[in-house]
Amino acid sequence: MVQLFDDERFDYLTADQSMKIIQSPTAFSFSLDAVLLANFTYVPIKKGTILDLCTGNGVIPLLLSKRTKAAITGVEIQERIFGMAERSIVQNELIEQISVIHGDIKEMQPILGQSTFDVVTCNPPYFPTPSKTEHNQNEFLTIARHEVLCTLEDVVKACKLHVRPGGKVAMVHRPGRLVDIIETFRKYKLEPKRLQFVYPKKGKDANMLLIEGIRDGKADLKILPPLYIYNADGTYTTEAGDIIYDR
Amino acid sequence: MVQLFDDERFDYLTADQSMKIIQSPTAFSFSLDAVLLANFTYVPIKKGTILDLCTGNGVIPLLLSKRTKAAITGVEIQERIFGMAERSIVQNELIEQISVIHGDIKEMQPILGQSTFDVVTCNPPYFPTPSKTEHNQNEFLTIARHEVLCTLEDVVKACKLHVRPGGKVAMVHRPGRLVDIIETFRKYKLEPKRLQFVYPKKGKDANMLLIEGIRDGKADLKILPPLYIYNADGTYTTEAGDIIYDR
Repeated sequence: MVQLFDDERFDYLTADQSMKIIQSPTAFSFSLDAVLLANFTYVPIKKGTILDLCTGNGVIPLLLSKRTKAAITGVEIQERIFGMAERSIVQNELIEQISVIHGDIKEMQPILGQSTFDVVTCNPPYFPTPSKTEHNQNEFLTIARHEVLCTLEDVVKACKLHVRPGGKVAMVHRPGRLVDIIETFRKYKLEPKRLQFVYPKKGKDANMLLIEGIRDGKADLKILPPLYIYNADGTYTTEAGDIIYDR
Repeated sequence: MVQLFDDERFDYLTADQSMKIIQSPTAFSFSLDAVLLANFTYVPIKKGTILDLCTGNGVIPLLLSKRTKAAITGVEIQERIFGMAERSIVQNELIEQISVIHGDIKEMQPILGQSTFDVVTCNPPYFPTPSKTEHNQNEFLTIARHEVLCTLEDVVKACKLHVRPGGKVAMVHRPGRLVDIIETFRKYKLEPKRLQFVYPKKGKDANMLLIEGIRDGKADLKILPPLYIYNADGTYTTEAGDIIYDR
């Protein structure tokens, strides 16, 4: 068993309890968003390479490893959270398949080259830079959630740099940013091909979106069926439950 | 009763049979798309001005007149279809409220000025220019459905030209064009604010979208709840039925 620090704990990552992940309420805990992104993205099954930017505690590489034999690389800028990812990979005996890099997604070209990955995934910070007051509350969470160290454009630019022509880029984000996302994807020649909106329940506006672009792809976007998370009684819908419990 | 020509007929436009519209199977018949757009768009209730570009047989102005006292102007480029709209307005005794112009939406500035309308609506041609074979089959339908006489950019440019700052532009289109639509709206300073996807039935991809932009608006997009048209048994859903029968 690898070591835990401070308020870290092991959580089961999968319903079959075959995989554990290190979480910390003050540093980083994964959210439903990451689980939905890992489910949404297409992956090569038997071989290939996948890059996960803003990987946090490594939740997306860990989940993807259940579906693919591809080599997976994660990049995380925050050293403490990078350490959580690294130890979770060791704990799950996945060091042959998954590696994480401690570094800035804007500066990965010397390490990762360019145009090499089949798939690039990212669950980026969603919100514009916070006010000074918010910023000071918890730096780990601020950096993970706000565009303090990387903007949407930085993220999309890095996705474009590292994905091969014809490769896929999958991202989870907020509907309020859709126009920015689409504009930035097009700017960096990542043509949006699949778009799915996630609704908390019937009758509510969407509160999450999943988007996949193909580098240098032709214009032809599909809007997938909506994904509802909760029934009116607060239980998971069948479709959400299938993703959440069968991962 | 106004005169009908060729294969024209009167159809009831509203379930209460209070309104009739001239249709022609070979020249122009309105579709569900127009009905959904008329329902989707916000309108000023008691006064104001509304412009409907690519108005066809006037279906959107006629439907909107049930919800607003605003003055409504339609523009239609095809003379025969313009004539159908004009006669439908007379038939419904709406000449005080609705006027139609026979002309090209790209050339309306001398007639309509600029930045004057509170709301601009448009159900434009959806498809790129057809092949020569398709083109020759029925010119009326080709022009209404294909970007022969006006492209998406022409339409958005005209919307921008005629809507006032802070005014609304509402459009119905195909999901496959979403990226182009969003990019073009932004280019012409029409910030997308409300977006709704229409699904034929559960489990299918969306086949229609409704979008509203605000001229010079701030970035903040809402993705409305999805609209399903049919139940599994082929009957209208309650929500679609409410729009279709209660119009």
